[in-house]
Amino acid sequence: MMKRILLLILTAAPISGVLAQKGDSLQIRKIVNEALLNGKCYSDLKFLANEIGGRLSGSEEADRAVLYMYSKMREYNFDTVWLQPVMVPHWVRGEKEQAYASRGNLKTELNVCALGNSVGTGDKGLRAPVVEVKTADELDLLGKNGVLKGKIVFFNAPLNSAHIHTGTAYGESGWQRTKGPAMASRYGAVGALVRSLTLALDEFPHTGATQYNDSFPHIPACAISTIHANELSALLKVASTAETQVYMRTTCQMLPDEQSYNVIGEIRGSEKPSEVILVGGHLDSWDNGDGAHDDGAGCVQSVETLRIFKSLGIKPKRTIRCVLFMNEENGLRGGLKYAEWAGMRSEKHVAALESDAGGFTPRGFNTTATGTAMAKLTAWQSLLKPYGIETLKHPGGGADIGPLGKYGTVLIGFIPDSQRYFDYHHTQVDTFDKVNKRELELGAACITSLIWLISEYGL
Amino acid sequence: MMKRILLLILTAAPISGVLAQKGDSLQIRKIVNEALLNGKCYSDLKFLANEIGGRLSGSEEADRAVLYMYSKMREYNFDTVWLQPVMVPHWVRGEKEQAYASRGNLKTELNVCALGNSVGTGDKGLRAPVVEVKTADELDLLGKNGVLKGKIVFFNAPLNSAHIHTGTAYGESGWQRTKGPAMASRYGAVGALVRSLTLALDEFPHTGATQYNDSFPHIPACAISTIHANELSALLKVASTAETQVYMRTTCQMLPDEQSYNVIGEIRGSEKPSEVILVGGHLDSWDNGDGAHDDGAGCVQSVETLRIFKSLGIKPKRTIRCVLFMNEENGLRGGLKYAEWAGMRSEKHVAALESDAGGFTPRGFNTTATGTAMAKLTAWQSLLKPYGIETLKHPGGGADIGPLGKYGTVLIGFIPDSQRYFDYHHTQVDTFDKVNKRELELGAACITSLIWLISEYGL
Repeated sequence: MMKRILLLILTAAPISGVLAQKGDSLQIRKIVNEALLNGKCYSDLKFLANEIGGRLSGSEEADRAVLYMYSKMREYNFDTVWLQPVMVPHWVRGEKEQAYASRGNLKTELNVCALGNSVGTGDKGLRAPVVEVKTADELDLLGKNGVLKGKIVFFNAPLNSAHIHTGTAYGESGWQRTKGPAMASRYGAVGALVRSLTLALDEFPHTGATQYNDSFPHIPACAISTIHANELSALLKVASTAETQVYMRTTCQMLPDEQSYNVIGEIRGSEKPSEVILVGGHLDSWDNGDGAHDDGAGCVQSVETLRIFKSLGIKPKRTIRCVLFMNEENGLRGGLKYAEWAGMRSEKHVAALESDAGGFTPRGFNTTATGTAMAKLTAWQSLLKPYGIETLKHPGGGADIGPLGKYGTVLIGFIPDSQRYFDYHHTQVDTFDKVNKRELELGAACITSLIWLISEYGL
Repeated sequence: MMKRILLLILTAAPISGVLAQKGDSLQIRKIVNEALLNGKCYSDLKFLANEIGGRLSGSEEADRAVLYMYSKMREYNFDTVWLQPVMVPHWVRGEKEQAYASRGNLKTELNVCALGNSVGTGDKGLRAPVVEVKTADELDLLGKNGVLKGKIVFFNAPLNSAHIHTGTAYGESGWQRTKGPAMASRYGAVGALVRSLTLALDEFPHTGATQYNDSFPHIPACAISTIHANELSALLKVASTAETQVYMRTTCQMLPDEQSYNVIGEIRGSEKPSEVILVGGHLDSWDNGDGAHDDGAGCVQSVETLRIFKSLGIKPKRTIRCVLFMNEENGLRGGLKYAEWAGMRSEKHVAALESDAGGFTPRGFNTTATGTAMAKLTAWQSLLKPYGIETLKHPGGGADIGPLGKYGTVLIGFIPDSQRYFDYHHTQVDTFDKVNKRELELGAACITSLIWLISEYGL
């Protein structure tokens, strides 16, 4: 009897589990070493950010970025590399925006930039009295009382610094930029100024897309720097709305859709090739900076994932596919196109991981996983903890991979440290020098390790 | 019987423990909010780094830093604020260092700076053939064979990028700077060049103290930038030692000791005033940068800890003492003096926490605690996890608080994210702009929360 029990213990799952864990941790260490000692993502990003720069959908820079990342995937010997055509919006900023607040002879320059997809003011610009609002309720109250008619609405609710994850603060205040101008137009406003969505006090505006409501006029909308938002607010405290006017001039416009591409590369699975694990980021970026953190970092980390598999000679059991999506910033066309294409194929997307929160030190992942999938991810966390992964949150995902959710794909978002992200986000200072080599590489190492675990064991 | 068991359960420790935890987490949330919404440490650091700058022991800037931090503690209404006199070494760098490698008519400029406490070369400089070494064994082998006599020894072992915590890599390679010149002198070397102790490839040298062995001549010693170390190494690969000479000129010197001070402020404990909890950093810094991360950050976070207690009206049960130590970088006199003084008093140092690893996002603490103390710290970790504290490592501590260890004081070191630290450490780029406001504040919040828990419950 004793012998049988011993035999049972020796052959039982926990033992093989322990051995698997030991082998897994050795494999993960190899992956991490490759990322830290021979990593290519930092130099790839250097070229993408410094030599190509900002690459808004439909721009020449976006075309160059497509060709560059395609050539990198070829250079790294991915099994298959292709371009997936997708028509994208082509919004252009036009001339440098101008704005100032005036009160009598007093003029205060305001640093503004047009919000993505916004209409322009026309050559002569727009001049109107300005009304400050901080909440949607306040907007509704003023709007219903006719106060917003003919006015420029100034959305000025600061992000809440008490949130620990800065993304929470961004999410909470984001309505001002995404919906604010449309909400104001409904009440007859003629323009919108939106406080930059950042926790920092800085001099430059943070752009980003706004969404119009086609039932109401599309009104010109600009982001204003947080320092100038504070100044304008102070001005409005000592003067009435009637006395204080804002002038703004933007020549941005939406041109006809352009042909563009998602850039895709894959390593075919050796045992279950029809089970696909996607890793990706978005290749387009805003035009005012170089899109280094948003989302050059996610793109080069995704490419690095497959490069590490190739470099270490790992033959994944399931297919690993790197997808660099076009047009996350002002349309999501790439994400929608990919999901549409994926839906028509017989392969199954087991999981999709997106890195789109900056190239900072890894802290965790968030995910839509539940049940067994969540149990597996939770069990693997201890393997990734030595490299900085301390949280696994529910829910999660990413904008570009979101449309895959309807197929039952487990969505996973990479969570780097969030403290600095919104200092750079959608601005002229989202540049290569803000990215730390080791932080970027450690992120790639953690992403690759998780992708490897899923490719070995499924979800 | 059932009733008694129920009663036991209801009155047992776990229940009161749960209630305590709930109250504790609310108090900690208040502390964190104060740090993030009304924090002063960032503006305090701005002045210390930008207006005073580098503050090497014995310098005028160190004097100004002492007065500034003293005045801040008074301004924040600490119960008692005082200066503790301590004599410190007064090493001065002198003129800007010069160095080049030469081979025939070929001259290659080298970016170097004297190591702290190093002797100068004299006005004419030092010229000698150069020998590269990467390990202590290699040094001994060459030394015993007489190869190092009359030579400049070039220590060129890079930090190992595979380590996840950069401090591990620094610790592993640090002997080259701290002991290398003394080891080389033993074998008749006339000078030393030490590869900068950083994981980055950069253009500027990283200074730091070296320790001579008084049994052998004190030889001039410089740090060389990692890029120039690579260039010099490449040069030595294509030419013999005899052909390649290095010229270096330093006019640094050690002057007589100077009077300086540890800056100390405390809030008296309401229940156990003779039990002291110390929180501190070191006020001196290297002269080439502004000492923003090393260790301006630790100083302002320590002051912020007591300021938050005062601002929230928290009356600590035990005494909280902020100590800003003088002379960590090239002597540790402040730490030694404080411990000597503490040893003569009847009070007991329950715990001492040092922040001296940069003002980056908090990740954890390391500690000498064992047994019950470690169990308490471990239990508290879940209270700090929402704010980024995910590791509690053994052993730990800090240079300045180290001498308190002999009294049984539990030593605790603050662990911020380590990836960027050695990019700036001991260089001209350790400046205020490298510090992120929220990261610094979150660190202060975590430190204050832990200090508060110890002040409430002891260790």
